[in-house]
Amino acid sequence: MSGDPRVLGVDLGGTKISVSLWTPDARRLARRTFDTIPGSAGPNLDMIIQLGRELLEGKKPIAVGVSAGGPLDHERGVILLIPNLSGWTNVPIGERLGSEFGAPVGLENDGNACAIAEHRFGAGRGANNLVFVTLSTGIGGGLILDGRIYRGHRFLAGEIGHHVILTDGPPCGCGNLGCLEALASGTAIARRLKERKRILEKKGQPTDGIPRNARELVECAKQNDFFSLEFLRETAGYLAHGVTNVIYILDPEVVILGTIAVAAGDLLLEPMRAELARLLWPAFRKDLKVLPAQLGFDLGDYSAFAVAPIPV
Amino acid sequence: MSGDPRVLGVDLGGTKISVSLWTPDARRLARRTFDTIPGSAGPNLDMIIQLGRELLEGKKPIAVGVSAGGPLDHERGVILLIPNLSGWTNVPIGERLGSEFGAPVGLENDGNACAIAEHRFGAGRGANNLVFVTLSTGIGGGLILDGRIYRGHRFLAGEIGHHVILTDGPPCGCGNLGCLEALASGTAIARRLKERKRILEKKGQPTDGIPRNARELVECAKQNDFFSLEFLRETAGYLAHGVTNVIYILDPEVVILGTIAVAAGDLLLEPMRAELARLLWPAFRKDLKVLPAQLGFDLGDYSAFAVAPIPV
Repeated sequence: MSGDPRVLGVDLGGTKISVSLWTPDARRLARRTFDTIPGSAGPNLDMIIQLGRELLEGKKPIAVGVSAGGPLDHERGVILLIPNLSGWTNVPIGERLGSEFGAPVGLENDGNACAIAEHRFGAGRGANNLVFVTLSTGIGGGLILDGRIYRGHRFLAGEIGHHVILTDGPPCGCGNLGCLEALASGTAIARRLKERKRILEKKGQPTDGIPRNARELVECAKQNDFFSLEFLRETAGYLAHGVTNVIYILDPEVVILGTIAVAAGDLLLEPMRAELARLLWPAFRKDLKVLPAQLGFDLGDYSAFAVAPIPV
Repeated sequence: MSGDPRVLGVDLGGTKISVSLWTPDARRLARRTFDTIPGSAGPNLDMIIQLGRELLEGKKPIAVGVSAGGPLDHERGVILLIPNLSGWTNVPIGERLGSEFGAPVGLENDGNACAIAEHRFGAGRGANNLVFVTLSTGIGGGLILDGRIYRGHRFLAGEIGHHVILTDGPPCGCGNLGCLEALASGTAIARRLKERKRILEKKGQPTDGIPRNARELVECAKQNDFFSLEFLRETAGYLAHGVTNVIYILDPEVVILGTIAVAAGDLLLEPMRAELARLLWPAFRKDLKVLPAQLGFDLGDYSAFAVAPIPV
């Protein structure tokens, strides 16, 4: 190896893929992104390798970290599937990137990887017990318990978005009814906004300013739009119900929420905290912190870096 | 120390206290029980010490294990409180029994202690990730994660009975609405039976055979009583909903249920498993076992023994 040691990070999502270059002490030097190429994994892997090589300028990395949105086998380095990407089944990404870059590859589910990143570099530093909630198109999670990532028996732990909070609630993409994800994810927010709009239209009321998705909702709420603030408060109620359940089961010190919570900040988190105060026994609230991801919109890159198996 | 080494176990509940004598390799030699004395902890501690001395016949134990039904500080050996026993607040039981018996004392919440006992000696042997659900007057829990007891930040983890499964459901003793405990615990079963009886009476239908509590319910169901079998099935539905939620969050290999599940066996567990099969993604069901506590009605004594800090 020539030159300073470098680490490569790959944040692999259903809509975007980011490849980033790091120093071993967590300084991001550069990044390249591209829209996920529909269809099979092959062209995406080729592009990841090409961008990685460009970033590395012919050097060999000491480790590669991959954070991927979907169930996977971290031990064998195989992505089992990525929701909404039909071509990504049983992709041995660890083997492929390992042989291309000549370095050890770490692979982790994005919920777990984000939990590890926030634990090491973000809002969860120093916490032994941490729950991370991905809050974007869907809702996932990652658990740091007694200081270590907890993956479960089938490496499926942390599917916080699919515990049911409303019996006979709206249908979830997973096939069940009333999952947390079916009420509070970005997808669910867009669906609920559409329903609300339809109701207002039926009543002959104006619907011009009604936001169409979570991004617009947060923007409108920041302009003090009454409808949007109320709608966010309702969403915060669902999230608080789900997070309360997780707290009664796991008694964490910190709960950290991603994407939408990062964008909305206290407009979402304050009503959530108020509802948590109503639902949680006082003993559970002692020192409890409910925070947005501190790594903000860089969390994806950090999560990839954080799971790279850097030799010690 | 003279003679063979002995271990003392104390299973401390709101209605009954059991003191048991053990060999270090988990053979129970004898036990004494008494009804918990109402009021302050003092007379109960005196009785525990007296019975312990009788069992030990003047010998000194090598360790004492205490399983207690309520929040406690296992590090300091202090019982913080026992629900429904007003006199048990901040009881330094570890110090007291330690000085009386001249041996190290281990103290653990009963949910945790039962999880440890079933993991070491019962239905959870060999499992790395295990959820124990106490199912008696109330519903509690204990979590073995990655092979070790998981207690949480405030030692409160495992309050499975107080996650909410039915928004605006019946009031729980804890002050919230629709907790799992408010629908499927022994107390909830008795309340629901009473409500059902009142409805039948209003309709002028016979109510003679309607059981009054969980014990009678299980007995009637074993006699193939149609009402009782249906009522158990409904209860299994609530339990399945709660256990499903825990499985999505923790992805355990084994879920073990106590007391009422031990008494009812497959009459409760078969409809539970059917409902779990409906609610869980296939990936989560791989190798999943849902079992009654194998240590059965001896689980209390085993749980006390299991937390005794036997010197190695």
